[in-house]
Amino acid sequence: MHHLDAQQLAVMLLALGLLIGCARLLGEMAQWLHQPAVLGELLAGVFLGPTVLGKLAPEWHVYLFPREGPNAVVLEGISHLAIVLFLLVAGLEVDLSLVWKQGRSSLRVAIASTLIPFLAGLACGWLMPTALGRQGDADPLIFALFLATAMAISALPVIAKILMDMNLYRTDLGMVVVSAAILNDLVGWTVFAVILGLMNPAAGGRAAISQTIGLTLLYAALMLTLGRWLIHRTLPLLQAYTHWPGGVLGFAVTLGLLGAAFTEAIGIHAIFGAFVAGVALGASRHLQERTRMLLDEFVSFIFAPIFFAGIGLRVDFLTQFDLPLVTLVLLLACACKLSGAVLGARWGGLSVRDQWAVGFAMNARGAMELILGLLALEAGVIRQRLFVALVVMALLTSLMGGPMIRLILRQRQPHRLLDYLSPKLFRRDLQAITRREAVQELSQMAAQAADLNADAVTEAVWAREKLVATGIGHQVALPHARLAGLKEPVVVVGLSEAGIEFDAPDGQLAHVVFLILTPKHDPAIQLELSASISEMFREPHAVERVLRAKGFTEFLAAMKTMTPRDR
Amino acid sequence: MHHLDAQQLAVMLLALGLLIGCARLLGEMAQWLHQPAVLGELLAGVFLGPTVLGKLAPEWHVYLFPREGPNAVVLEGISHLAIVLFLLVAGLEVDLSLVWKQGRSSLRVAIASTLIPFLAGLACGWLMPTALGRQGDADPLIFALFLATAMAISALPVIAKILMDMNLYRTDLGMVVVSAAILNDLVGWTVFAVILGLMNPAAGGRAAISQTIGLTLLYAALMLTLGRWLIHRTLPLLQAYTHWPGGVLGFAVTLGLLGAAFTEAIGIHAIFGAFVAGVALGASRHLQERTRMLLDEFVSFIFAPIFFAGIGLRVDFLTQFDLPLVTLVLLLACACKLSGAVLGARWGGLSVRDQWAVGFAMNARGAMELILGLLALEAGVIRQRLFVALVVMALLTSLMGGPMIRLILRQRQPHRLLDYLSPKLFRRDLQAITRREAVQELSQMAAQAADLNADAVTEAVWAREKLVATGIGHQVALPHARLAGLKEPVVVVGLSEAGIEFDAPDGQLAHVVFLILTPKHDPAIQLELSASISEMFREPHAVERVLRAKGFTEFLAAMKTMTPRDR
Repeated sequence: MHHLDAQQLAVMLLALGLLIGCARLLGEMAQWLHQPAVLGELLAGVFLGPTVLGKLAPEWHVYLFPREGPNAVVLEGISHLAIVLFLLVAGLEVDLSLVWKQGRSSLRVAIASTLIPFLAGLACGWLMPTALGRQGDADPLIFALFLATAMAISALPVIAKILMDMNLYRTDLGMVVVSAAILNDLVGWTVFAVILGLMNPAAGGRAAISQTIGLTLLYAALMLTLGRWLIHRTLPLLQAYTHWPGGVLGFAVTLGLLGAAFTEAIGIHAIFGAFVAGVALGASRHLQERTRMLLDEFVSFIFAPIFFAGIGLRVDFLTQFDLPLVTLVLLLACACKLSGAVLGARWGGLSVRDQWAVGFAMNARGAMELILGLLALEAGVIRQRLFVALVVMALLTSLMGGPMIRLILRQRQPHRLLDYLSPKLFRRDLQAITRREAVQELSQMAAQAADLNADAVTEAVWAREKLVATGIGHQVALPHARLAGLKEPVVVVGLSEAGIEFDAPDGQLAHVVFLILTPKHDPAIQLELSASISEMFREPHAVERVLRAKGFTEFLAAMKTMTPRDR
Repeated sequence: MHHLDAQQLAVMLLALGLLIGCARLLGEMAQWLHQPAVLGELLAGVFLGPTVLGKLAPEWHVYLFPREGPNAVVLEGISHLAIVLFLLVAGLEVDLSLVWKQGRSSLRVAIASTLIPFLAGLACGWLMPTALGRQGDADPLIFALFLATAMAISALPVIAKILMDMNLYRTDLGMVVVSAAILNDLVGWTVFAVILGLMNPAAGGRAAISQTIGLTLLYAALMLTLGRWLIHRTLPLLQAYTHWPGGVLGFAVTLGLLGAAFTEAIGIHAIFGAFVAGVALGASRHLQERTRMLLDEFVSFIFAPIFFAGIGLRVDFLTQFDLPLVTLVLLLACACKLSGAVLGARWGGLSVRDQWAVGFAMNARGAMELILGLLALEAGVIRQRLFVALVVMALLTSLMGGPMIRLILRQRQPHRLLDYLSPKLFRRDLQAITRREAVQELSQMAAQAADLNADAVTEAVWAREKLVATGIGHQVALPHARLAGLKEPVVVVGLSEAGIEFDAPDGQLAHVVFLILTPKHDPAIQLELSASISEMFREPHAVERVLRAKGFTEFLAAMKTMTPRDR
């Protein structure tokens, strides 16, 4: 009845707490440096794992993360659960209808960007297995097939994130890339599932293998047709007759777990079943945004960190770091993926600039490569040093994606309101009573911070204000001006308990005043910033929440938690 | 490196999927019958456990839920994790400021309703341990102390839910009960934590025990003062500078896990640490509703079912069901808790009616008793048959709470709009073009369903409509009438793509028309129903979402998912 004694339970909770806490902390730090969170999460594992903690305080490392005993078993079980749920959520993001809509171009990009790296990987894996870090007794064909898949796969979540960050997601280019990545995902995971089936020692014999492959394809086909239809019919019933959102949430997790159990049982890895179940579930327009977000947030911020930090725990990243191998894998991966995607995009009729943008987008490997590599490591197909090389390659290809596309498309960094807010440019209690005084007071703060002439700023803003008053209603005002010589936008915020008359259409006084100064040469910025402010304050109680802030940090917290997405 | 092979992993995922799926399903079924979800969740475990599946298909039971081996270890670990997170969320619900506000009355209710059952339980446990199912070699004092706590504890979450369901939560009576239950919770868990410390075999010696107790009190005191202050300071920083809501979510879970690990390490059970951490976190007004709900929903609908179904898996509820013992425990529990609470309420100056309402509210034991019982069973203090008796007592005291209070306060069941919607009273496409036609069409449907005279209904509604038009804006209209002889309200819904002129203040046509017929003798019902409809449709896009529905189920799903809480 009792498998964990009090001390083991305490260690389990401590280890989980440290994993989640450190992974989230370093994940946030990575994001402050504009890097993906997964980089930080992985580093948390590197610090807690054999690479750092294992060197500095080996007894602590063994105490927290023993290699044997019930604690090791529980951590492995939870880590499997985490990755199954992660793939379920990844599946939800796949929008099959997009693929049909995009048609020819995306199909061609998908085919070329999957097939060319696959063949290149297959050839290299077959011709130079030892140099690439094949495990001694692993089957050469399986190793070559694994390397082929590792080269061919793209990471849909990373690509989607990069495109969203650059406001490219809803463009034609974005849709071609996303739908190609979806196809790549589906094909890649199916092929990989089959390879895992091939290496399953329990299978043995050709008959068993073909049975596994047959069952896998059957599962995917049934789930995406009949299963999808059934889910689509079931969701309204669940929403109408069960607790909301608990009913749908429980259904989604159950579906993912049972799908995962099924594919694991037929000899394919569990994650494939969860992923396909996620795709089938995400295809229903009845799945509400709220359910999607609930699952996404809990899985991304609690389970995923456990898994990705867990990767760092597995391997000593310093002793297994083999620079020539890392370089080889990185060059091979970039060369074959870029050439494949660029050729595919040319074949699909895209412009030269767009071809390269597609190339760098499809090149991002992200979390998917980590999962793939870990499974191959666990199955004894690859050596630890190849695993480390794959991890580095996955991170670097993801990191370079955004900046390279921005460079190629000559896009500027999008302007996020929150990036411009700062304590120096915030006044909790405006002295001003009139509109003119408010403009003056805020202009002086802006002038001081950005080294401008205060009177010139005031006059520019006031001139604009006299033309049309800038009270936008909902108790917010947005006085603004475009200034020659300014390089970056300046946003000053002042709060006023009493309120200031800004001649708003709804007749209300302004309690929150944003002064927005933008460079003369870029008229779009001011519109972007004003639009995002007015969207934020359209929410009921927004001004009340902002006025409750006692200082800048609380003000920023209120602004941020009002924003549906990071801005 | 490898602790779970493919088959064990498949079994783990299958077992978890079945546990969550069955528990949610039976939990929903329990709620359809107006019973608490935990009853259904527990029954799911009874079906999958030794009681049913173990009898009908023992080999399946052993396959799914083996008692030894890695699968048993993982399930135990996840189950511990689930209960830790559950107590963290339970702690969030505790609002310490309430207790100070309520002052004298609630303090007196809390003292009497905790102390009297505690002393009665202590006496009975000491005087007749064998009849009550003490485990043979358990320490008599510890057994008596355990029984005392089991009698004294109340279940804050159940009580809060009962009061909310009856719209009593925000009343004086409700606040007295809730704040007394909060005090009871704090004292009860502290005492229980100390008892668990006493029975910790590793502790041994009086010095160690007093050290454990000292550390426990120190932890609680520090966490609720310094810890609370630090958390309150940290939350705005997290909200301002980390990913929202991921940053706060990760922080909350990490805090709960580390608190749990600490108390487990000092010899007190983990759940105490998580609970106190939850109280400290929930006390900050910076904790946003969204974070609370995210945690609450994921924990209540994914983790809690695993734990509560897991309880059913532990014991054979049929062979261990001992009717005399169950009766004895139930009578003892009700007698001492009711008398304690009623005396306390009298002492606090409440009316006789309110005294008994307080009594039956405090009597609800709910999930807390299950957790307590399970820990005692695991620690070898009680026999399985006492455990079964405690489970039955916990469920029955929770089940009787709501109906008894309603009876005592002579409250009628609150009217929930969703309960009156039905396929027979729904028309997807109204034929009507004018207001008069719409009233006629809907009245005919109402008349048919409720066996009334169609013309009389039409005239009654039209008479009302002529006085003041019932278009309430936001494209919704609420024609209505009070009819003599009607026993229950009748609500008919019609949708109109084209829209019907109902003379709304915002000038928009009505696309959703609710015809509300209510009994003449109860004028409040109509106001209640109208208020909840207009609240629902104040949400942006509400009408669009409703109009997307193709039939009744999709309509009901849209209505339900628009509602912040079940209505």
